Amino acid sequence: MSTLPPSESPVTVIGLGLMGQALAKAFLANGHPTTVWNRSAGKADELVGQGAVLAESVRAAVEAGPLVVVCVSDYDAVHGLLDPVGASLAGRTLVNLTTASSTQARETAQWAEKLGVAYLDGAILALPAAIGTSEATMLYAGSQAAFGEHEATLKALSEDVTVYLGEDHGLSALYDMAVLTIMWGVLNSFLHAAALLGTANVSAGAFAGMATTAINVTADYVTAYSEQIDAGEFPATDATVNVHLGGMRHLLEESEVLGVNIDLPKFFLQVANRAVVDGDAENSYAALIKQFRKRSA
Amino acid sequence: MSTLPPSESPVTVIGLGLMGQALAKAFLANGHPTTVWNRSAGKADELVGQGAVLAESVRAAVEAGPLVVVCVSDYDAVHGLLDPVGASLAGRTLVNLTTASSTQARETAQWAEKLGVAYLDGAILALPAAIGTSEATMLYAGSQAAFGEHEATLKALSEDVTVYLGEDHGLSALYDMAVLTIMWGVLNSFLHAAALLGTANVSAGAFAGMATTAINVTADYVTAYSEQIDAGEFPATDATVNVHLGGMRHLLEESEVLGVNIDLPKFFLQVANRAVVDGDAENSYAALIKQFRKRSA
Ligand SMILES: NC(=O)c1ccc[n+]([C@@H]2O[C@H](COP(=O)([O-])OP(=O)(O)OC[C@H]3O[C@@H](n4cnc5c(N)ncnc54)[C@H](OP(=O)(O)O)[C@@H]3O)[C@@H](O)[C@H]2O)c1
Ligand SMILES: NC(=O)c1ccc[n+]([C@@H]2O[C@H](COP(=O)([O-])OP(=O)(O)OC[C@H]3O[C@@H](n4cnc5c(N)ncnc54)[C@H](OP(=O)(O)O)[C@@H]3O)[C@@H](O)[C@H]2O)c1
Repeated sequence: MSTLPPSESPVTVIGLGLMGQALAKAFLANGHPTTVWNRSAGKADELVGQGAVLAESVRAAVEAGPLVVVCVSDYDAVHGLLDPVGASLAGRTLVNLTTASSTQARETAQWAEKLGVAYLDGAILALPAAIGTSEATMLYAGSQAAFGEHEATLKALSEDVTVYLGEDHGLSALYDMAVLTIMWGVLNSFLHAAALLGTANVSAGAFAGMATTAINVTADYVTAYSEQIDAGEFPATDATVNVHLGGMRHLLEESEVLGVNIDLPKFFLQVANRAVVDGDAENSYAALIKQFRKRSA
Repeated sequence: MSTLPPSESPVTVIGLGLMGQALAKAFLANGHPTTVWNRSAGKADELVGQGAVLAESVRAAVEAGPLVVVCVSDYDAVHGLLDPVGASLAGRTLVNLTTASSTQARETAQWAEKLGVAYLDGAILALPAAIGTSEATMLYAGSQAAFGEHEATLKALSEDVTVYLGEDHGLSALYDMAVLTIMWGVLNSFLHAAALLGTANVSAGAFAGMATTAINVTADYVTAYSEQIDAGEFPATDATVNVHLGGMRHLLEESEVLGVNIDLPKFFLQVANRAVVDGDAENSYAALIKQFRKRSA
């Protein structure tokens, strides 16, 4: 436990790739004594110029302070680095910002528990350049006590959007995947829409304004649909699944006739058709959650 | 051509289903002398109580004024009603707000041209209750002269968002399909995300705020990606297709392990993998437009 004021609490960053360097830079910029280590030592040069201390070994890096942040390519790399220094980690807090699945995060939490390491698994919803700005979202899951103790330090990475999700160490990875799913879903549907309009020589730029509005308008449904999902009741206060199906058939036909790809319309139809088979024809679109919850056939 | 001031220009509405009634109501509320007709005459009762005139026949309805709006279930119904009264339609403007494909819209435009009817094909991006409010988006395509002549009247349906798209009569249907594609894409990805988080007992409501943010943040990419699409150059200023692919593999694995549906992750991967085959591994996500433009294999 540090006796320094929070803004000067020391921190160690292991892994100085694009992201690790951005993390260390943000800690330094906030006045934290920052110890760094990277497999290829050269990546520390710029940070050392900014005041960071380059540790001689992973062990020395870990022993430099109460809070160790690791951000490398994957969890194999994490274990390759940290398994040999488990005894040094004991009693400290490890914050793992390496991307992973929730299963990997939970397994690593068990490993940490055996060693007596307070463990937070995190996810970074940002590009390196956004670290330290309000554009970055930082998610943490696991030991609430450890989060409470180091929250002030971790806020160097994102003052405004530092979110503690709960004790389940898998949550940050799950939220990460959930947010990425939404990103790909939105982008793919925009690209299909742009391809459709392209057949009539409408440029993507001419459609961009309406597309943005359509995305934002649809975002407004999320709250109402969430209430239905949590209540398990799906009254069709707007359009029924059957009405959506009618439109989807139009979309499939339109896409076929115009010679653009039909995989996305077919996917829409498959999910909605399955919902009809399960008796949700007259329910709201939110009833399709049941299909997404089910293992694929 | 009406000699009355625009706010009192007469209008005819044919088809008084849920949507047709809402259209007629909005015209009446804006002071337009409104003639109505519906196959089942009873649906006119409430409108007649509000001042509408119920025509005795489709022909009488058409002949009541310069502007005829039709909104029925489909284009077969449109032609069933209007083919017999083509001579009466000549010299007037027909605005068809029935949902259709762009092909159907263009065919109907040819039919109208032969008859000497000024034709606008339209699309309604709204529920009936939103007609006449700024929540409704009304799209029109076709004769620019006809749109200019009747714009003031048509704005009774949406004062703020009445959009003329161009002379190609297929455009309103295409934009309609494009916007619906986006709606389904956003909703499906949100539902998959909610299903993932549900495995860790995170309620949809607890995720709704972050989901809404994720959707809105992704909407911000649309403008930059549109510029790339129109330029046909896809520099990866954020993440490359390869980096996205890495995340998508995580999503597939996570979805499999947690026992939720994997069809959406598999679709994401398929499209991105095809882009890699086509040489776009190091380009930005916008390069996937090429896959959406291509006929399915
Ligand atoms: N970049 C982003 O936009 C972004 C956004 C969100 C999350 N993330 C996540 O952040 C993490 C790091 O990403 P990055 O962009 O910094 O990647 P990167 O630039 O490729 O850096 C990878 C880092 O991992 C180290 N490393 C890899 N394998 C190792 C091993 N076996 N032993 C020791 N060190 C090893 C590398 O060391 P060397 O320098 O010696 O090779 C380097 O420090 C990833 O999990 C990524 O998913 C990145
Ligand atoms: N409701 C919405 O939220 C919404 C939103 C956007 C677009 N739209 C579009 O608006 C159009 C109408 O939808 P709606 O909601 O009003 O549907 P609806 O309530 O089912 O009404 C259908 C209308 O079409 C008439 N009709 C159907 N077949 C006919 C035929 N063979 N001959 C003569 N009339 C016929 C019906 O007459 P009867 O009364 O005699 O059956 C009725 O007036 C559709 O193209 C729909 O896609 C609706």
